[in-house]
Amino acid sequence: MTRKIHIIQSPHNRFVKHWKKLRKSKGRKESQSFLIEGEHLLQEAISSNVTIDKLVVEKEKWSRFQSRFDFDQIDSPIYLLPSALFSSLMETKTPQGIAAAVRFPEWEEPEQLTGMTYVLLDEIQDPGNLGTIIRTAEATNVDAIWLGNGSVDPTNPKVVRSAMGSSFRLSILSGDFGQLIPHMQKEGIQVISTSPRATKNYFQFRYAKRVAFLLGNEGRGINREWRKLVDDEVMIPMYGQTESLNVSITASILLYERLRQLFLTCKGAQHSI
Amino acid sequence: MTRKIHIIQSPHNRFVKHWKKLRKSKGRKESQSFLIEGEHLLQEAISSNVTIDKLVVEKEKWSRFQSRFDFDQIDSPIYLLPSALFSSLMETKTPQGIAAAVRFPEWEEPEQLTGMTYVLLDEIQDPGNLGTIIRTAEATNVDAIWLGNGSVDPTNPKVVRSAMGSSFRLSILSGDFGQLIPHMQKEGIQVISTSPRATKNYFQFRYAKRVAFLLGNEGRGINREWRKLVDDEVMIPMYGQTESLNVSITASILLYERLRQLFLTCKGAQHSI
Repeated sequence: MTRKIHIIQSPHNRFVKHWKKLRKSKGRKESQSFLIEGEHLLQEAISSNVTIDKLVVEKEKWSRFQSRFDFDQIDSPIYLLPSALFSSLMETKTPQGIAAAVRFPEWEEPEQLTGMTYVLLDEIQDPGNLGTIIRTAEATNVDAIWLGNGSVDPTNPKVVRSAMGSSFRLSILSGDFGQLIPHMQKEGIQVISTSPRATKNYFQFRYAKRVAFLLGNEGRGINREWRKLVDDEVMIPMYGQTESLNVSITASILLYERLRQLFLTCKGAQHSI
Repeated sequence: MTRKIHIIQSPHNRFVKHWKKLRKSKGRKESQSFLIEGEHLLQEAISSNVTIDKLVVEKEKWSRFQSRFDFDQIDSPIYLLPSALFSSLMETKTPQGIAAAVRFPEWEEPEQLTGMTYVLLDEIQDPGNLGTIIRTAEATNVDAIWLGNGSVDPTNPKVVRSAMGSSFRLSILSGDFGQLIPHMQKEGIQVISTSPRATKNYFQFRYAKRVAFLLGNEGRGINREWRKLVDDEVMIPMYGQTESLNVSITASILLYERLRQLFLTCKGAQHSI
């Protein structure tokens, strides 16, 4: 394979400028691509058939990577950068010497809502929380995640890092919940949120065959407007003086309880413990 | 109340140097105190009877805080710092203008293990993960958390921030798991870890009356030596291509399943869904 290998020395090079643009949400939208750092995420992107636009390798580590990484998997151009310049472009504190700009995965809005489980996130702010929810959502067989207005950008490098590759496979969409919630309900999907004042415990509540979980902002919780629209609310019991749980923890508790109920239904078990 | 209010102008002041020392683990151990930032954590510390050593307020916001914050709750000296100097001492990007150095809570090793639920964390590295586990542990009535060698310092400001006040109330201890696990077992505590190869599902496994969950390092999982010692392993089912869950998610799934089983036992319910 003839491959283009570029050696970049100057911080004023066009490539460097392009890469820097991708660190911002606007730049990512314009070029429809985002950044991933490290060998693990790169392998996840490759195995998930995400298109690699550009591969960047720390020049000093190039021969080491050649002996252990199969570059034939990728046909994008490779850029070799000296250590200092490479590190200046990375977000992680101790970069591993390899990174890539990749195309947005095909997060297409489904024409029909045929899935069993969805997650709606209202104004979620923390990139680590969103990434962790994406990772847990893939593990619990969620069909898609919808982000409401004012949420963190799912192509933010910290989101992608925390999602550990799950962003390449799970659809992350954006939507106006004022329209989406009634639409889901019309399609037969039960929409559930949490509330400390709900009378039903999350594990005593029987979720419908098709369900969407609506979770709120880290500080303010769920927008009142959307709260009015849901079919039901469930309560997660809390001891001590804790007032709330981290939103990624709430998501995982609900999604795993949902999974537990599906397991039991499928296996025809009468009781679980 | 006669209160000492110090106005600090110079970055070379002794107080500033002392505060900077507290940003490092060594300095915190020496002075047996650590830093908290923001009004919410400060209120949590006060309501949890944690001793406040020093209160620091951004000078420009002093009059605003006086009108809304009850300073009579605290008898520590107050240090007023100009904005730039105040911000230079904070870890958060947009500091709220108030912070404190507080005494270590009384995280005393219990003489007898009389609790129902414990968490053992082996070489946990990420401060956000530890903080989130502490928060979830308080919510699920955990009696104490033990950190194995090589874990992140629980007085690290990021841990304290993510724990949202739960560090002030839940004991966070350190221990050698090679001794602690057999000791717990001798005291009648069942020690459980997770494994993708375990034959039992975490929600089909019936936990003993008294149980300790052993969770591992973010990258490497649980140390082999400790794995050999546990009473049983449970599996958390995962769909898609996910290989693992975030350790704080794993902790929350196990702790909430434990809580669910306790609820059902107490209420004498025969089955849950």
